[in-house]
Amino acid sequence: MIKLAILGYGNIGKAVEQAVKSSDDMILSGIFHHNDNIENLDADVVALCTPTREVPAFAEKIARQGVCTVDSFDIHGRIYDLKKALAPVAAASSSVSVIAAGWDPGSDSVVRALLLAAAPKGVTYTNFGPGRSMGHTVAAKSVAGVKDALSMTIPLGTGIHRRMVYVELEAGAEFQEVEKRILCDDYFAHDETHVLQVPSVEALNNVAHGVNMVRSGVSGTTHNQRFEFNMQIDNPALTGQVLVSCARAAVRLRGEGRFGCYTMIEIPPIYMLPGDEERLIRTLV
Amino acid sequence: MIKLAILGYGNIGKAVEQAVKSSDDMILSGIFHHNDNIENLDADVVALCTPTREVPAFAEKIARQGVCTVDSFDIHGRIYDLKKALAPVAAASSSVSVIAAGWDPGSDSVVRALLLAAAPKGVTYTNFGPGRSMGHTVAAKSVAGVKDALSMTIPLGTGIHRRMVYVELEAGAEFQEVEKRILCDDYFAHDETHVLQVPSVEALNNVAHGVNMVRSGVSGTTHNQRFEFNMQIDNPALTGQVLVSCARAAVRLRGEGRFGCYTMIEIPPIYMLPGDEERLIRTLV
Repeated sequence: MIKLAILGYGNIGKAVEQAVKSSDDMILSGIFHHNDNIENLDADVVALCTPTREVPAFAEKIARQGVCTVDSFDIHGRIYDLKKALAPVAAASSSVSVIAAGWDPGSDSVVRALLLAAAPKGVTYTNFGPGRSMGHTVAAKSVAGVKDALSMTIPLGTGIHRRMVYVELEAGAEFQEVEKRILCDDYFAHDETHVLQVPSVEALNNVAHGVNMVRSGVSGTTHNQRFEFNMQIDNPALTGQVLVSCARAAVRLRGEGRFGCYTMIEIPPIYMLPGDEERLIRTLV
Repeated sequence: MIKLAILGYGNIGKAVEQAVKSSDDMILSGIFHHNDNIENLDADVVALCTPTREVPAFAEKIARQGVCTVDSFDIHGRIYDLKKALAPVAAASSSVSVIAAGWDPGSDSVVRALLLAAAPKGVTYTNFGPGRSMGHTVAAKSVAGVKDALSMTIPLGTGIHRRMVYVELEAGAEFQEVEKRILCDDYFAHDETHVLQVPSVEALNNVAHGVNMVRSGVSGTTHNQRFEFNMQIDNPALTGQVLVSCARAAVRLRGEGRFGCYTMIEIPPIYMLPGDEERLIRTLV
């Protein structure tokens, strides 16, 4: 049995708990909050469910103890840097860290890699939504006059997105002014953005999200090879499940002595799955 | 540069040739036909493009020389057996064989594995076509009175398929009789099958094919997680490209000393791709 501990107990931490409890090959060995003591962990692997910016420091601290980690660090431009920072720490302590293990980055990354292998020339468009953008929601919330906000990402195709920003105003704030501030914000200035005033942002709360990925490419010298991947999912539930599946892969890689830091495209997909190799190959391949 | 040789020069062999010539990290080191001498091969890897039933013997013969192999062996029920037979041969000669490397089995298998990791409970339906079924076409061609035949697979959803069988009759054959024989054949008796007489089967020739894969599953305890993967592709071009991408993976695995036999779900997707690891991770993850 794989002993998995959870660090951070928000939406994602709770989803990891459910995924672990649904896995026959794992037991939940602890749930830790932000400021808990995380020395001498009784765990094979820790799922890091803190805000993404806190992931690198926690990952390093835990990897140093020789305990595997898995996270859904999602700042795309810094994933490779995180890998380079964590890899020597994990290698030195004989552990494995799997990073950027969610759906994007994460399972979508695997699909992008596979489509590139299948049709090396061409363009892949990843269209997100409809669903809440965490980054844009935080940006909208920080605008003066906004009491609460929600920014929905709407896919318009070819990687172009519309932002639908729902705002609840602070007493005395004027909508036109708030709208102007949001439209000028760098997070929104480059996309088609609509700001709408609502009486309650909480009433719109919904963790549904989606992806539509499209590739038209060339296999060998043959053009017009067409691929499409779609998901409509509960966002924290999928992220939590992918974290748990990648926790399994981390422990497997450690068992093989392949210490270090991996993104999902560097892991054999079968390592994410429980059960007998023969049964998996006979049923999936 | 990876030296790749082709064994078998039909549709797939020609597609492999095009994919190799389109790859900056490979050179084509030879094209061999069925009865050519394949001792002392000047190649890192041989792409086996023979009929599928001849793959196991050729793979073993080449692996014994310490040369990697890649094939698109497609008899689903025997893939694991082929792995078990080839693995010790490859291990003993310090080579790597990648098997069942096409699109189904192949890239579809990777998607199936990924969706199982993302939502472990549920059903995945793989719907094939519209496109020509090789097995059913061969079965129809072997029926008495048939001069030429083409069996198209039409997806009806939930893994149920219709067979559209186009037949050109031999002189003197009677259509009703031929139709009856086809409908009784074990290849066709279990599916909705329509037999149509045409003046020329050659006039219908088209290597287009497709897949529609659908999964509704459970992540953790959250139901209604929905995934869909679609392709509309030139069949030999995609198979040839996947073979070449997996040839790259075979050579990479050999370079790491990980000798043996692998299906695509046992390979890190990044190993199928050329170029710098940092660039790939920064652009794909």
